[in-house]
Formats: sequence, structure tokens, C-alpha cells
Amino acid sequence: MSAIRAVALGGGHGLSATLRALRFLTEDITAVVTVADDGGSSGRLRDEFDILPPGDLRMALAALCEGTEWGRTWRDVLQHRFASSGPLAGHAVGNLLIAALWDQLGDEVAGLDMVGRLLGAGGRVLPMSAIPLVIEAEVREGQTGRTVRGQVTVASAHGALSNVRLVPASPPVRPEVTEALGRADLIILGPGSWYTSVLPHLLVPELGAQIRQAKARRMIVMNLSPQDAETADLSPADHLQVLQDHDPELTCDVVIADPLAVADPEELVARTHQMGGRVLFRQVRSAERVDVHDPLRLAAAIRDAYEGSLGDVDTRENKERP
Amino acid sequence: MSAIRAVALGGGHGLSATLRALRFLTEDITAVVTVADDGGSSGRLRDEFDILPPGDLRMALAALCEGTEWGRTWRDVLQHRFASSGPLAGHAVGNLLIAALWDQLGDEVAGLDMVGRLLGAGGRVLPMSAIPLVIEAEVREGQTGRTVRGQVTVASAHGALSNVRLVPASPPVRPEVTEALGRADLIILGPGSWYTSVLPHLLVPELGAQIRQAKARRMIVMNLSPQDAETADLSPADHLQVLQDHDPELTCDVVIADPLAVADPEELVARTHQMGGRVLFRQVRSAERVDVHDPLRLAAAIRDAYEGSLGDVDTRENKERP
Repeated sequence: MSAIRAVALGGGHGLSATLRALRFLTEDITAVVTVADDGGSSGRLRDEFDILPPGDLRMALAALCEGTEWGRTWRDVLQHRFASSGPLAGHAVGNLLIAALWDQLGDEVAGLDMVGRLLGAGGRVLPMSAIPLVIEAEVREGQTGRTVRGQVTVASAHGALSNVRLVPASPPVRPEVTEALGRADLIILGPGSWYTSVLPHLLVPELGAQIRQAKARRMIVMNLSPQDAETADLSPADHLQVLQDHDPELTCDVVIADPLAVADPEELVARTHQMGGRVLFRQVRSAERVDVHDPLRLAAAIRDAYEGSLGDVDTRENKERP
Repeated sequence: MSAIRAVALGGGHGLSATLRALRFLTEDITAVVTVADDGGSSGRLRDEFDILPPGDLRMALAALCEGTEWGRTWRDVLQHRFASSGPLAGHAVGNLLIAALWDQLGDEVAGLDMVGRLLGAGGRVLPMSAIPLVIEAEVREGQTGRTVRGQVTVASAHGALSNVRLVPASPPVRPEVTEALGRADLIILGPGSWYTSVLPHLLVPELGAQIRQAKARRMIVMNLSPQDAETADLSPADHLQVLQDHDPELTCDVVIADPLAVADPEELVARTHQMGGRVLFRQVRSAERVDVHDPLRLAAAIRDAYEGSLGDVDTRENKERP
């Protein structure tokens, strides 16, 4: 069997979990990363240089690094954050390096590919859009509603979010992303901050269409625990509803969910059926931390879902207990 | 013939010129770099993190990079300086990367070796001392004298400098430096800012002794033009006198000087004889800029001086005219 051509969509730690899992399955991995971050080191670099926020891109590259001492050392260096009471404090080294490569090479993808080569990355990391984005949403708190703006603000908003949108609304998509989605066997959304790392890809009209129209199998990996205030009150089925609300035509072949994180399996199964798919209930959490995906367990689940070995799909009997 | 084991002592652009020349002759190159810089990006990083100033180390690594697209691209990235009106403005990317590697690996030489591997460097770059240094001097301006402190201040001092010294006065030397000097066939001092990049090595007691006692051939490459205010009034012979004043026991086998930069060849020859050596007058300046060494011309001069093909040593007849 030739290598699975996998595209993982997301951002932050959630995307890293998927990428680490995919590393067990294939070397043909493309990460398509949200570029709406406005916080921390990335936010400061956006302010200073008007560039794509490099942080989530850096994390995805780090997750794809080769397992040699060379690869791990550079990964650790790129992930390293300066600690001081001075102006560099908190900056991730990799963010600075990526910003410099972009300035030096004049092309974001070329710069990311250079870092990928440095790390011996088993895959490629691409930005979701060719330009930096701002995320906005309406939030309802009690009887009042207001508009929240910026990834940090949206992710930390308490209350029901609606009408999540990007500014600009129809940003350009890199041809490398289009090419990767066109040839993909497997597309994975999630896990991650749902409104700010998973949903945004569907909000880029060109990208959303490519995801919907791709011949690949589409999977959604559910979160293990609420990622942020934004989704504290949402059930797994509600998470899927969020995607459907913003992209009614989205279909999905398999939803991967850890039984421990699903209070109402029937609700999730029903919602997944509406999207054309089935649920694979499988323990994908790590043994140490209930809120973190174990890369190898997740890899096994993705492999089984991809190959159709879904013996425990949609069955409550297989719902594992802690 | 086995590869010449070369050690080049200096800092800044002068050391880079020697290293680029040595690249034509051997791959067994060790650069021993001054660590007293307190200006620019390096000075800011010293202030923020209390580390060795990385700038001259970075420049030496850049000069040793391999001639592939990979090596040149990373060299250009490490040499790249951020341009903005924000807190990163003026920082060289390589300085930040080196600082991060030091913090990550906990060892300066290990960090420099990692950058060397990244660049495919044809040699090794080591700090002159294991700890950051401060340079001090007395400067006489007319009838008054005062103490100047810090590399930037010393290099820009107008007036006769004396009693140049390091704080602390007897800093530890890395064992890798001792080992390189012990096995060297060739040791080169200069060109460069004389008081702040060339002389300092002789002021580290342990290092000065190792340079004097090494079995290697010792060469001094003279400057093409005054490097700074500090040496504006010094003849080439005066430059040698500066070294002798601070290290009376220093001997030298060959002084390489461009005839265009020597107004009084006899004076230089006489002073060089006092140090036990001879002068090789050779056009080593570049065709484009009279104040910059041409790497290939300098390589030829160093090779000839090393092999003893000194047909034009000490001869005024060979003094080339512009």
C-alpha cells in the first residue's frame, strides 16, 4: 500500500496531537494551520512586522520533527521561549526564526519548508490563508450580546458564540494547500480550540469548498475536555453542530471520540449520522493525562477508521470506562 | 600534505576576512573569537541575559559556512537583522538563535557547534574566554587622561590608548581553545579593530601564554586602513608595537601587509624583525574596495607565507603601486 496522503487542519496543541499520531502512519503529511492568532509571541510579531502569526505553524513543524538527536534538539530550540525581564521575554525562538526566514526569502511557504528541512520534518506545514486573519464572533451573555474580536478574546469569551467570521471574509488560499487537499486520501479536522483552531478553516470560502469537495475520507477528532471558555458548555454533538452551523454542507466519514469525553453517546452518534458519518469510540486519551491525546492510541484509531476496521463504531458496548 | 591545522584569532569583519581566506586552504579551522563586545544586538543580549556576546561568534560562523544553497541561505538568515520600529529592531537572527541554543543546551561550545553543523561550517568557532569580558583602557587626550570602559567606547576613543586590560583580568579559557592551539600548524592574528578584536586575546594570560608557546607558525595580518578612531594615528609598525607593549614576549614568523597600506616599509620591516619575523608585502586588498581584504588574494598570501615561498618578503622592489 502506498503511503496515506494525509492533510490535518487545525492549530495549536490539538493539531500537534494529530500530527504526532499521523507520524506513525505516513510521511506524506500536510498540516494546514490557522493564522488568526493574535496572542503571545505571535501577536507581538504580528504587531511588529505585519506577518502571519508564526506560533501555530512553529508548533506544527515541531510535532513533525524527525526522531533523531538533531531533529529533537532543533525542535527544542525552536520551541524554547526566552525568559528574561527584557524585550525578548516570552518570544519562542522558532517564531523569530520563521519571521526572519520570511523576510529573507520573501515567501512564507519557502520559509516554512526551510524549517521543515532543518527539523527533518516528516511532512509539510502550510498556512490556512496567504494573509493574516482576524477572527470575530457574536457572544451572548444573558440578555445582551456583543461582538468579540481577535482569537484570544474569542477563545476566552464566556457565553454562547455565534456568527463566527473571519476578516477579511474571503482570504486567498495558497496553491500548495489546494494541491494537498486535491490529492489527499485523508483529511482530519480537530482536536483543538473549536471556534478558533478547527472552525476557521471552514470559514475560508475557498478552503471550505476544497475540504467539502475533496475525494479524501474526512475525519473529525473530538476534544477530550473543554479547550477554552468558548466551548465550556458544549457537548461533543454541539461541537459538530457548530461546524454544521457555519458550513451546512460539510460531511464527515468518521468521528473519533474518547468514550470518557462523551456523556451522551447517542446524541453524538445521531449528529454524526446527520453529517453522513459514524462514530469510532476509542480510548485515545493518554494514560497520564485525561485531557491529552496519546499519539499512538490516536494513530491506531485513525488507521482503523481509515481502513474501515470499525468494529466498535457506534456501539455503546464498547464505551470504555475509566 | 595533510590539512593545515589553522587557528584564527580575532573578531568582527577582520576575523571573517581571515576565515574566508582560510576556507581556500583547509577545512581544519578554529576561530577563537573575542567576547568583550558590548554594543548593538550583542550588547543588548548581554544586558538581557548575561551571556557571552554572540555577534562576533555568529559572524565567524557565517564566514565558515559551506558554499551550498543550504549553507548560504542559513548564513543569510543568521546574518539577517530585524527591521522594525519595535523591540526586535536591529537584532541579528543568529544572535538570538545562539542565545537560545546556549540556554537550551547549557554549554556555549555545544551551541556554537550546532550552528556550525547547521551551516556546514568548514571549521569550529570558539569563544576566547569562557565568560563575558569587559575591556578597559587609559586614553590620553591632550594633557588629560581618563579611563574608558567597554568595547564600543574604547574603539571610538580619540587619543592615545594605553594600559588596555580586561575585566576580569584572568578569565578562564575553554579547553577546546587550548586543544586547538596545542595542535595548530598555523596561528593568525588580525586583521581587525586592533585594541578591541586583535589585542584582547593576548591580554587573557592563559591564552596569551598558549599563543606564545604554540609550535605553530605565527602570522599577523595587518589592516588595510584605520579600523576605528582608536588606531587612526598608528602606523603598521605602531600596530605591532601595541601588541609588544602588552605582550613583550610575543614572536611572529610572518607579517602580511598590503604595500598600499604601508607608508614606511622599512619601519614595518624593522619592527617585524624585532618580533623575530619577516614581512610579506602582497596585494591582499580587494579590487573593488581598498579597505577590504580579498579572500582569495589573502589565501594565496597565507599559503605562500606558510610554505615559505616568500620571494617578495622584505623587499621594497615588490611594493606594489596602486
